[in-house]
Amino acid sequence: MSKLLELADVTAPGSASADPACCAPLSGSTFSEAEAAELAKVFKALADPVRLRLLNLIASAEGDEVCVCELNEAFELTAPTISHHLKVLRQAGLIQGERRGTWVYYRIIPQALARLAGLFALPAAPPA
Amino acid sequence: MSKLLELADVTAPGSASADPACCAPLSGSTFSEAEAAELAKVFKALADPVRLRLLNLIASAEGDEVCVCELNEAFELTAPTISHHLKVLRQAGLIQGERRGTWVYYRIIPQALARLAGLFALPAAPPA
Repeated sequence: MSKLLELADVTAPGSASADPACCAPLSGSTFSEAEAAELAKVFKALADPVRLRLLNLIASAEGDEVCVCELNEAFELTAPTISHHLKVLRQAGLIQGERRGTWVYYRIIPQALARLAGLFALPAAPPA
Repeated sequence: MSKLLELADVTAPGSASADPACCAPLSGSTFSEAEAAELAKVFKALADPVRLRLLNLIASAEGDEVCVCELNEAFELTAPTISHHLKVLRQAGLIQGERRGTWVYYRIIPQALARLAGLFALPAAPPA
């Protein structure tokens, strides 16, 4: 049967998504130091071109999920390197993986992306 | 007269904002390596708790701008350290500063935040 990787091999799954305060927009109330530290971890996961491309491939996949076998083929990198980058994205709470048979299938965690979209949301046009 | 700091002391102002392709959502078309590299730089600027708190203070400031003198007071850090973090945010194209008299006043660049919000925007609820 399928098994969510979060349960199997991720030490701190979605640590950021556990904090609802992260949903507040940057233009809203003031972050605490803890909130800022938590968010910085998510952005650290995003601060890598390969991880951004992986996230892009996963987010844009038909059927909303993509086999790790396809991700491996999309880069001139070793499978362990791709696996490492996927682990960083998982630990940041941005994606989840599910093993089915030989392969792991990845999909985004929509709430995580929605939280980030909300973070950068601006109020209506600022007064001139 | 006032002077935009981007013109004065930033080597590569808004490097990311120069690339309209950055506006595409993660769930849309596939990024090029160059687009991913450009975006990764922006997230590197965001991957620091102090810079996130600075951006938060600037984005949430009344009147849409905040004096560096207030930013210095909000942290137990030296003025040069704050100045360094503000420079990183400026170089990532996220904020702009304007000198008026003794102080520099910072405001966000709304297009930069809108681009990031758009990046994480999801299509309507995915098919179940």
